[in-house]
Order: sequence, then C-alpha cells, then structure tokens
Amino acid sequence: MRATLIYGAGDVRVETVADPKVAQATDAVVRVVRSCICGSDLWPYGGMPAQENGRPIGHEFLGVVEETGADVTSVRKGDLVVAPFVWSDNTCEFCREGLQTSCLHGGGWGADGVDGGQGEAVRVPQADGTLVKLPHTEDEDLLASMLTLSDVFATGHHAAVTAGVKQGKTVTVIGDGAVGLSAVLAAKRLGAERIVLMGRHQVRTDLGREFGATEVVAERGDEGIERVRELTGGHGTHTVLECVGTKPAFEMGLGVVRAGGALSRVGVPQYPEGPIGRQVFMRNVTITGGVAPARHYIPELLPDVLEGRYQPGRVFDRTIGLSDVPAGYQAMADREALKVLIKP
Amino acid sequence: MRATLIYGAGDVRVETVADPKVAQATDAVVRVVRSCICGSDLWPYGGMPAQENGRPIGHEFLGVVEETGADVTSVRKGDLVVAPFVWSDNTCEFCREGLQTSCLHGGGWGADGVDGGQGEAVRVPQADGTLVKLPHTEDEDLLASMLTLSDVFATGHHAAVTAGVKQGKTVTVIGDGAVGLSAVLAAKRLGAERIVLMGRHQVRTDLGREFGATEVVAERGDEGIERVRELTGGHGTHTVLECVGTKPAFEMGLGVVRAGGALSRVGVPQYPEGPIGRQVFMRNVTITGGVAPARHYIPELLPDVLEGRYQPGRVFDRTIGLSDVPAGYQAMADREALKVLIKP
Repeated sequence: MRATLIYGAGDVRVETVADPKVAQATDAVVRVVRSCICGSDLWPYGGMPAQENGRPIGHEFLGVVEETGADVTSVRKGDLVVAPFVWSDNTCEFCREGLQTSCLHGGGWGADGVDGGQGEAVRVPQADGTLVKLPHTEDEDLLASMLTLSDVFATGHHAAVTAGVKQGKTVTVIGDGAVGLSAVLAAKRLGAERIVLMGRHQVRTDLGREFGATEVVAERGDEGIERVRELTGGHGTHTVLECVGTKPAFEMGLGVVRAGGALSRVGVPQYPEGPIGRQVFMRNVTITGGVAPARHYIPELLPDVLEGRYQPGRVFDRTIGLSDVPAGYQAMADREALKVLIKP
Repeated sequence: MRATLIYGAGDVRVETVADPKVAQATDAVVRVVRSCICGSDLWPYGGMPAQENGRPIGHEFLGVVEETGADVTSVRKGDLVVAPFVWSDNTCEFCREGLQTSCLHGGGWGADGVDGGQGEAVRVPQADGTLVKLPHTEDEDLLASMLTLSDVFATGHHAAVTAGVKQGKTVTVIGDGAVGLSAVLAAKRLGAERIVLMGRHQVRTDLGREFGATEVVAERGDEGIERVRELTGGHGTHTVLECVGTKPAFEMGLGVVRAGGALSRVGVPQYPEGPIGRQVFMRNVTITGGVAPARHYIPELLPDVLEGRYQPGRVFDRTIGLSDVPAGYQAMADREALKVLIKP
C-alpha cells in the first residue's frame, strides 16, 4: 500500500510499504477513508533531525474494517469506524477512568510496527478498545466532522472539560488553529457565557465567531493580556484553553486567567520549564489539561455531530489525495491551509 | 502594647508599639489570646535583608473583641473570635466564590498599618468579613485546635480539597511540618483510602500516623519516588499534597502523582519556574492549590473541631510567652519545635 513517511524536517514522502495484516487476535485492519494532517505533525515537520529510514506518520483517520483478528467482537468487516489518536484496550484501570491516553496496553500510531494514519490502510491493535463504529454515510461534511472526533474536536473538548467550562463561565481560547477553533466550539457546547478568542488570522477568527466566540483579540503578549483584562473588568476569564503549546502562549494564558481559575493546556508544551511560582500560587490558578483521551469523549460527542448540532469538520479548508500529502504539510506550515483533509 | 517585629534574617524582636485603635467604622480591635509561629514566617527569618525599621509579623491568632467600629455587626465586645491569615470583606465577587485570599478589599497582617498577629492586640480591618465567632472556653487543647483554623488546618484542607481527595482516593503528603500533618488529617477527614506521608522526622511522622497516615516514606528524591511507586503498583497516588514549597519537593510530587491525578501546592513556592513540560502534559497531571482561603473553610471545619472529632491543635509542641518569641523562631528554624504556640 501507499503511506506517508517522515524522514526529517521538511521531508515527508508518500511511498509503497508493506500491506497491513492482522498480526494479533485483537487487531483489525482498516482501509482509510479519510485522514488528515495535525498541527502537532508540524512539530517534527519543522524540526526533526534527518534520518535514513522514514517513520510512518499521521494519527487521525476513519475508515472501513477490512479484516479482524479472532478475538475482535465489537466491529466487523465492512463497518465504518473512527480511531482516536492513540490506541488503547479500553479495559485497564486508566481506560476505565477515562484516561485512554495512559492505557497500560496502548500506544501511538506510526511507532513500534504500527502504521501511521496518513496511508491507505492501518493495522489497528486492540481494535475492540480503540475503534468506535459510525453509521455509513456519503455526506462529505459529516465524514469530515466525524473525523475530528479522532483528535481536534475531542482535544478542544478536553481543554474545556478539564478547565471546568460550564454554564456561566467565561473562557479565553488561545490560538486560532484547528484545535483552538474546536475548543471554541466545545466551550460553546458546554454553555460558556463568553468566549474570547485570541488569534490574528481573520479567516480563522471569523470561523471562530461562527463557532461561538463572542470577542476576538488579535493582540499578543502584554498587549493581549491587557486587552482581555479590559474586556473582563480587570480580572481575566475563569478558564483559559491554551491551544498552542509555546511558552509565550502559556505565559499569556497565565496573564488572562482569573484568580481561582484554571488554565488548560492541550497544545503539546514545547518548553521544559514554565513560570509557576508565587504569582500562580497567590492567585490560586490551576494548571490542567494534557493529551486528550479522545476515545473517552467520542460516545458523548458523536450524537451531536451525527445530528448536525455541531459541525467541527468546518475546520478543514483543503482536501487532497494521498500523493499531495507533502504539499499539504507545506501548506499548513505556511499557514495557507488551516487543516488539510486527506482522501487516500 | 508589646508586639513582634522582624528586622531581617534571624532578627526578631518583641517591642513596645502603639496600641491598636479602631480607625475605620469596619474595624475591630482584638486582644490576642493565642497566636503562633508559622512555617512561612521562617522564610523571612531565614533570608530577609536587614532593615532599619522592623515590620510587624505573625498572621494566626484568636482573641477577644475589645472594641468595634460603628459599622461592625457580626461580633461585639467580649466575643472570642478567630482570624484567618488574611483579612477580607467576605462580600466581593471573589469572597462570594470562596476565594477570600483574592478579596478586592482585603489584605495581609503586618502590612500597610495593620498589626501582625504575634502581639498583644490587633486592629482587624473588615471585621465583619474577617472574624469568625467561637464559643468561649478554658480548654487549652480546644483553643489550640481552634487556632489552627486560622491557617494550618485550613491550609491542609485546601490542599486536600483542591487536589480532589475523597473517598477511595490515594494521597501522598509531602512534608512532615505542621501543614503537612494538617494535610494528612484533612485527607483522612475527607475519606482518603490511603495516605502516604513523606517525611524524615520520626516524632512528626508518628503524629502523622495518628492523624491518619497509612504509610511513611522517609526517603527523598528519586529514592522517595521509587518507594511511593512501589507502594502503589508502580503508578503513584491519585493526589499529592505538596506542603513544603521547595523545587525538589515539587519535583518529587510530580514523580509520585498518578497519571490523571493532581498535585496541590500549599507551601509557598520558592522557585520562579518549574518542570511542567511534556511529562506533565502526557500524563495529564493537574497542578493546583495555592494560598488557602481559610475564611471560606472555617464554618465547615469548626464543628468537627468543637466536637473533638479532629484535634489539629496537636501540631503544637511548645508553648511560650510573648517575650520568648525570638527563641521560638529559633527553635522552629532548628527543627527543635514543630509549631510554637504563643500566649501573649
């Protein structure tokens, strides 16, 4: 089959690799129907040291089950399924608590002999624990929205849930990428009273407004903090959803969070240490979030997507075939595309 | 009156200062019956630059109301009252949310013309919002336990509450000082299933066991982490109550907290930056806590203290008069005393 491999910064190739086969009784093989490129794929695309052997990449996909191992009972050949961005058994003590990202028997896509998601097919370990069955559809928009359950919508939701967004709460979302916009939508869905979106790309912030942002702040750093504080009587918002991952974004988050509030991080932190000293302590600010257990959230989010109440798939603004994946990476890196959908 | 002033590291003096008087209609003057020395007083005692004028110190006290301003309605002359370690109006938006430490019209003891707690009397601003009435008693143990509502027991409780301690949860308490032991007691009170106390002073950890610790780990650093992980199937505890405030204590806390768990800090952090990068993120660890809104917790904790179900006053292991306060500081700094009670 053809699949995407990354060889280093700026070097993504689509190549022919071995066809996936059921290797364990708990595996399934899924023919990919839709995949996509993630903001977090841009970190290695931006800075990975060159290596001789490519590594499979991509961790968001939905597709049709082609083959299942003898122990797989929850899905069967022909089912349309979505996979969260990590695989998990869904039975260990962490999975039972809803933290499938810490599954004792789980792992990531594109590592340890498991395929990446940006290819024609994927061997899915722990298929019963990992895959969630979807209704068959030809509706392009619905397919796109269902695909976001794999990562971005679930990740935005995780930010909102861990920060404690609910009816009556004020929210600042930092970042107008696909996760930031998904976080706006998730905050709206949870009943946030007011959603301030911090971002500078008007096409994106316009979508953010459609998703539920009540205000947009284009300024950054101290100026951005000042602006959000002005909007909130000087105090900041109860919750901050930090959807970027850089230290300046985190620092800005601390500047706009209200005393007693929570800052949730869902952008992978690109900094080993952060300013969590006296100021954070004296203001009782909680720092929460982390890698989102998408598998846990899919059953809750799916009905709203199926019934069209929320359309997180609107974050996709470009659709490409598999051979165009390298160009898709470049378009996202250049910020020409917000999020790229792949039809293999 | 006589009161304690700090002039710099190692330099605490008891001197004659102006008698407190009602200055605002919302003030009360309280004659101090019991006060004490706090672990956090040891930070300036250890490192404050020498200065010409002393500054009043002490922030924990209970006493008898001597005089009230015209607007004070909730307490009156002759009442026994306890003061939390900050004063607050108890009516602003933060106070109404239970975050009196961020009161818009509040402040600290020993600053801006307000007396410290380690003296014969104190002018209490915002008396209605700050003071909580207690029953009169001659019971020394009860007086000591009621005094801990001013800070240490409330602070230990804040650690436990913000970390999410409840029935069935496992807890690690870092630090066997008065706050650490109070946190053990608070965790026990909230129904923790298992409480691992990390501390090396056997007299203190013995009291910790009486307060509810199920295991004591004397090792520190990597060895300490290893030990707690061994005790918990390799995963660590759901909650960590960090009651020290140093960076190594925080790092140890991150090492023993279970994925998806929470580390609450109630020791004032003595570090501007901390390791909150990828590891914390991938494990979905929440960092919470902060300066405890004791005023918020007193009504909840007081009945258990009055009825003798909990005896947090057992953390006091030395009682002194006001003139011995400098020696009391030294005894706590030398770890000869766990917590020093003052009878002015």
